[in-house]
Amino acid sequence: MKKGLFITLEGTEGSGKSTQIAVIKAHMEAKGHKVVCLREPGGTPIAEEIRTLLKTPRKDDNMCDKTELLLMYAARAQLVETVIKPLLAQGTDVICDRHDLSTVAYQGGGRGMNMDDINAIRKVVLGDFRPDLTIVIDVDPKIGMQRARNRGELDRFELSQIDFFERVRNTYLEYAKHHPEFVKVVDGQKEILAVSKDVISCLDNLNA
Amino acid sequence: MKKGLFITLEGTEGSGKSTQIAVIKAHMEAKGHKVVCLREPGGTPIAEEIRTLLKTPRKDDNMCDKTELLLMYAARAQLVETVIKPLLAQGTDVICDRHDLSTVAYQGGGRGMNMDDINAIRKVVLGDFRPDLTIVIDVDPKIGMQRARNRGELDRFELSQIDFFERVRNTYLEYAKHHPEFVKVVDGQKEILAVSKDVISCLDNLNA
Repeated sequence: MKKGLFITLEGTEGSGKSTQIAVIKAHMEAKGHKVVCLREPGGTPIAEEIRTLLKTPRKDDNMCDKTELLLMYAARAQLVETVIKPLLAQGTDVICDRHDLSTVAYQGGGRGMNMDDINAIRKVVLGDFRPDLTIVIDVDPKIGMQRARNRGELDRFELSQIDFFERVRNTYLEYAKHHPEFVKVVDGQKEILAVSKDVISCLDNLNA
Repeated sequence: MKKGLFITLEGTEGSGKSTQIAVIKAHMEAKGHKVVCLREPGGTPIAEEIRTLLKTPRKDDNMCDKTELLLMYAARAQLVETVIKPLLAQGTDVICDRHDLSTVAYQGGGRGMNMDDINAIRKVVLGDFRPDLTIVIDVDPKIGMQRARNRGELDRFELSQIDFFERVRNTYLEYAKHHPEFVKVVDGQKEILAVSKDVISCLDNLNA
């Protein structure tokens, strides 16, 4: 049986990932694929509890960078081992809202953590497991943050300053440049339908 | 100003760590030291939430080994960076109920996880930070588990089978043999006062 496809969506806050995930899901299902959509951090009861811990702004304890990094990978390990790998093995496609590249961009680029440290932990957690396709939806963080603010209350990450998101964005673009074999960048500032068209053309290039 | 001493207590369930921590604290305070007692996983609000996640038996999600390992180190990173290092730097002694050697013994020995993986994560989280003294209180797991059962309901770790704790114990003893410069083993099956005497003699050898 054919293994399922693993597709991940990346981008800064308010880049329009959720909309494009819905579009990808419909597109794949129209081709007869079984599709499951997940998000990181989260996607299992344990990983969702880790998500809450990561996202909730708190005044009694200031989360240090290494704790944040390890919690991200703890949630990822649980999701990959107990949900994603079993789904792919049974031929189901998995679309994930954020995955490993978010750690490179946010903890590496945004927080400025040592990239060797991130690589060492990834090696332990994921080995050579990686998405078939990662789509980065690129928007100017100033525009994205306005969209995020319009959605309601901001979480611990969304409360970061604009230069944090500039570093995240630049890391995404830099990483994509060095990994064209599986990372594609789509301009998220076009009209929604034009973005969807670009996203779908990334999928079709995948020969899915 | 003199740096504080970092002393950790290790052992399987029901080995009597808590009692001996109280004895060490009183002994150090009698010598005029400032002493703070902590526990792992835990010791900060974030780390205590991680502890709950680690300890609670659950039916909706089976925690995978790598998630457990990363959560242990996430809690440890938070405690070491935000509590232990600042205390030691201001000259306070820290006594910790479990620390890094528990991960070697439980995740490495008990769960059989790859020791290279554990070492890679320790390197990222702790670098070369380690206790001045680690005391392993050694008891036959059959005796220790009986003591733990008498204390009340068992947590997720205490629900493991006896051969799990045999592996944990053997890993403690093996590790102590290879690191005599900071790990000491005390026979925890003697009378409490005899155990305390042995514990205090470990401290005095430290020239504290």
